Amino acid sequence: MKLGILAEIIKNMEEIRRKKPLIHNITNYVTVNDCANAVLAIGASPVMADAAEEVEDIVAISSALVLNIGTLNRRTAESMLTAGKKANELQIPVVFDPVGAGASGYRNRVAERLLTELKITVLRGNSSEIRSVAGFCAETKGVDASEADLLTGIRAGKEVAMKAAEQFGCVTAVTGPTDVICDGKRTVLIENGSRLLSSVTGTGCMCTSLIGAFCGAGGDPFAAAAGGVLSMSLAGELAQEIGAGGNGSYHLSVIDQIGRLNAETLAGRAKIHEA
Amino acid sequence: MKLGILAEIIKNMEEIRRKKPLIHNITNYVTVNDCANAVLAIGASPVMADAAEEVEDIVAISSALVLNIGTLNRRTAESMLTAGKKANELQIPVVFDPVGAGASGYRNRVAERLLTELKITVLRGNSSEIRSVAGFCAETKGVDASEADLLTGIRAGKEVAMKAAEQFGCVTAVTGPTDVICDGKRTVLIENGSRLLSSVTGTGCMCTSLIGAFCGAGGDPFAAAAGGVLSMSLAGELAQEIGAGGNGSYHLSVIDQIGRLNAETLAGRAKIHEA
Amino acid sequence: MKLGILAEIIKNMEEIRRKKPLIHNITNYVTVNDCANAVLAIGASPVMADAAEEVEDIVAISSALVLNIGTLNRRTAESMLTAGKKANELQIPVVFDPVGAGASGYRNRVAERLLTELKITVLRGNSSEIRSVAGFCAETKGVDASEADLLTGIRAGKEVAMKAAEQFGCVTAVTGPTDVICDGKRTVLIENGSRLLSSVTGTGCMCTSLIGAFCGAGGDPFAAAAGGVLSMSLAGELAQEIGAGGNGSYHLSVIDQIGRLNAETLAGRAKIHEA
Repeated sequence: MKLGILAEIIKNMEEIRRKKPLIHNITNYVTVNDCANAVLAIGASPVMADAAEEVEDIVAISSALVLNIGTLNRRTAESMLTAGKKANELQIPVVFDPVGAGASGYRNRVAERLLTELKITVLRGNSSEIRSVAGFCAETKGVDASEADLLTGIRAGKEVAMKAAEQFGCVTAVTGPTDVICDGKRTVLIENGSRLLSSVTGTGCMCTSLIGAFCGAGGDPFAAAAGGVLSMSLAGELAQEIGAGGNGSYHLSVIDQIGRLNAETLAGRAKIHEA
Repeated sequence: MKLGILAEIIKNMEEIRRKKPLIHNITNYVTVNDCANAVLAIGASPVMADAAEEVEDIVAISSALVLNIGTLNRRTAESMLTAGKKANELQIPVVFDPVGAGASGYRNRVAERLLTELKITVLRGNSSEIRSVAGFCAETKGVDASEADLLTGIRAGKEVAMKAAEQFGCVTAVTGPTDVICDGKRTVLIENGSRLLSSVTGTGCMCTSLIGAFCGAGGDPFAAAAGGVLSMSLAGELAQEIGAGGNGSYHLSVIDQIGRLNAETLAGRAKIHEA
Repeated sequence: MKLGILAEIIKNMEEIRRKKPLIHNITNYVTVNDCANAVLAIGASPVMADAAEEVEDIVAISSALVLNIGTLNRRTAESMLTAGKKANELQIPVVFDPVGAGASGYRNRVAERLLTELKITVLRGNSSEIRSVAGFCAETKGVDASEADLLTGIRAGKEVAMKAAEQFGCVTAVTGPTDVICDGKRTVLIENGSRLLSSVTGTGCMCTSLIGAFCGAGGDPFAAAAGGVLSMSLAGELAQEIGAGGNGSYHLSVIDQIGRLNAETLAGRAKIHEA
């Protein structure tokens, strides 16, 4: 399976650079600049627009829609729903990042609305965010909360990715030390990455926007999710190897490395395999 | 003409550093940090404030107002109009960047309101944005859309800059491989720059904020527009020559180079001439 | 006194890295990415959330709340009040940065509401901002405005820090060439720093968020304020010594240096002493 999906990812990356698809991001104001620059670095074209008055027009000229609730509010949550419905209508892929799901009731309610009122193509988050939207918390709540905490590592990642993929009928990417991508049938694991990725804000958001770029180039959603995650993890790993002077330098180096990814790097370094 | 306008730009740049004018930016949340840092790097002082409740107070203590609709919404569009009217009343120059004009009906309507209800001093955009606000699309629509696409390069840039300058009674800067600055009578071309400038988000926005800094130092609007554009293009060119490790490094290097511009660099490297 | 407070700061910094406290920031969209990365670099964990619907939930799981009015508007001003009241109720420290106080009537009114309706733990700003919120302007207005301008330097900083500390019953940090931290009884001065810190936007905002990290680790507010200010000033000084290629490189280097601060650097280089 490694060769199959890796070949598909490499082909998708070349398609991104050939087509330069427009990727519409409705995202947060913390990491929006990094997301736009990551999309440019991988070879696509970003547009960040969140006014309800225009999101339908913008999504209609885009090849993928990325929704990120990092700094959601009433105005942008409505815009996400409006844009998402238009994207669904036009069969434009929708990538959703439930940033911070579980941290507030409001965030949970908005995430739930997006996941039920929209057809999401790819859902990406860390383990705790995906556990939260998949209702793991509700199940464990009041019973034995510590049980949830025990379910760590690869096994837990696979379990939550599978549950969310089935529940929402979408590809789910759970990123962490080992990244898990699952579409309900197939599961792949990615073992690239760097511990340093969590020392910079926005690496998760950038990963989601990269998945948007892979989706926008016309890739199959499962391979597109794997492509975005692999790109981010490899860039983080390469930036660590180069060695940076600290958090600021590493941040910049990750964006450098996204732009330098190519078929050779992916073929030579990807640690991707069937679960 | 080269010597005349170049001498004026160099003098303006020295004035920026002497006076440190306050530049009020109502801009987008994607590139706002870069705009503030570009304004600081050229030697001016940025203030980013977009609440309707305070924009009149802020513009009243500023030397120029920069309006950028990159991530406009109903609230900030109103603030732009309010601030712009106050600036007009106080004879403070207003620089307008119609980011993404043409991409949505809402964006077009807001751009039109700003251009008709306000007296704009300098309008800056890429060729397609300026074509859009100048109504080129409307003219070509339904007739031969491809005609518009054929009008590329310097000739098209000059044509659209001239039309917009006459239509709105303002200096118009159309940036691209060759930058064109026109006030309806005079036209100058700038041949500096780097293809890499389009690999980083915000280089257009920074250019507009730099024009704001030149206007704020009291320069004649035509020379101020040319000064801002030349500064950005030269910084992009110098950053490319230094050679960066990728998109992230180039981004940072462009800001470094803005701060290092001086009379010698401008005199020695500017490729600016009358059209 | 130097040894006492310095030892306390070093201990607090180690606590930050051990506990990784969650720091809730309601801040501006200009420098929010830098604030999040500064909080990560010092070893804490940032969360940026400003929707009225969720700020109470977010602050309830956080160890400190940072309020920064850099780009305030009606919506976020309300969220700041709501979050602040919840923080007060839960006895979570609140750090307030009155960015641009004095520049508009609206800004002054919001700053006043935050300072009167909330119990602020640490107030940080530059001399003119703290003078403004402490009512210095009102006193000098109409009498001899130039008197205010004459009160510069260390003496003025001490005077304004003392007045604000007494008036609002909080620790006050006035940053500048010499930083002054005062709790109404004790005053310390910090002589570290770099002139270059003012060539990059957001260094003041980052300093405030670092104070939030020190408060969140459970430090005494006086030592926490001194710890945040010392961290920022030392990082700025170290970044200048390394030597950067310009404003962009220096910006990045400051964040690198925040992450590299340790007990040895602080013990060896801190120029902190009782006033």
